[in-house]
Amino acid sequence: MRKVILGVAVSLDGFIEGPNGEYDWCLTDQDYGFSDFFKRVDTIFVGRKTYEMSLGMEGGGAGFPKFKEYIFSTTLDKVKDGATLIKDNIKNEVEKIKKDKGKDIWLFGGAGLTTSLMNLGLVDELSLAVHPILLGSGKPLFKNIKERIHLTLLDTKTYSTGLVSLTYSLGKT
Amino acid sequence: MRKVILGVAVSLDGFIEGPNGEYDWCLTDQDYGFSDFFKRVDTIFVGRKTYEMSLGMEGGGAGFPKFKEYIFSTTLDKVKDGATLIKDNIKNEVEKIKKDKGKDIWLFGGAGLTTSLMNLGLVDELSLAVHPILLGSGKPLFKNIKERIHLTLLDTKTYSTGLVSLTYSLGKT
Repeated sequence: MRKVILGVAVSLDGFIEGPNGEYDWCLTDQDYGFSDFFKRVDTIFVGRKTYEMSLGMEGGGAGFPKFKEYIFSTTLDKVKDGATLIKDNIKNEVEKIKKDKGKDIWLFGGAGLTTSLMNLGLVDELSLAVHPILLGSGKPLFKNIKERIHLTLLDTKTYSTGLVSLTYSLGKT
Repeated sequence: MRKVILGVAVSLDGFIEGPNGEYDWCLTDQDYGFSDFFKRVDTIFVGRKTYEMSLGMEGGGAGFPKFKEYIFSTTLDKVKDGATLIKDNIKNEVEKIKKDKGKDIWLFGGAGLTTSLMNLGLVDELSLAVHPILLGSGKPLFKNIKERIHLTLLDTKTYSTGLVSLTYSLGKT
């Protein structure tokens, strides 16, 4: 079955954005394992806010591989051509997608979608690029997780810039 | 000059205690570098709550090496024999202690003291034992940090249980 992988850059104090939406602290000088990650996935899950933000970006995220895109939103009525809107019945829809043929699925965020999928037990892996910075405030990666979730460490990578990549599967082995 | 090292166990989502003060999730099956850490330090900084909790523990934390203890509290008027109370003028007092002869200093917490010392720029190193668990809620390690703090990664260690030990110095090199 295809895996859903939450793959995201995070500060050591657990924020994915600064207090004003900043992500200028995200290191971009190296590949940081992204090429390999991109080979693993062919599909992306995004929430409404992230989707709307990406629409506003020049070139529409040029340089990104072409992913099959699912937009999760209860309020939108339509999304751009080629993308698929998921309005409700998230659990069933995601389980169906996970059973489809294909590579793994990148859960790109945002925070609301992450929480929903985590609490529904639909996330299989976490791949966090822990940046060597404390932001102090901002948008937390994990919020309103209802229960303890045990993790199994799969991999760590340490980069010269101090970025540490931590990969976990959800659940104990 | 002696260094102040914040050394603490933390869940992957950044909590040092569960929502009801639980620390049953902290791994104790291995040494996890503690013996080496204990050789580096001869002094401990604790906040009032941690101090009061430790008084209530049977044996008073037997098994711990004998540290010179500083209790930080604005409300206490006296502390146990052998310990030193710091009521105010934290910056000057800590700077004075850091200039004293001796080994490094273990900032054991709690959250309030950690925030104060971090915001005063008095913490030199972070040594986090990142546990493979999401607690969902509880007492966050970092709270009310006023400004971005850049970190320099000094060391990482990965253990068979999935615990990852991350050590940073504060500031860019």
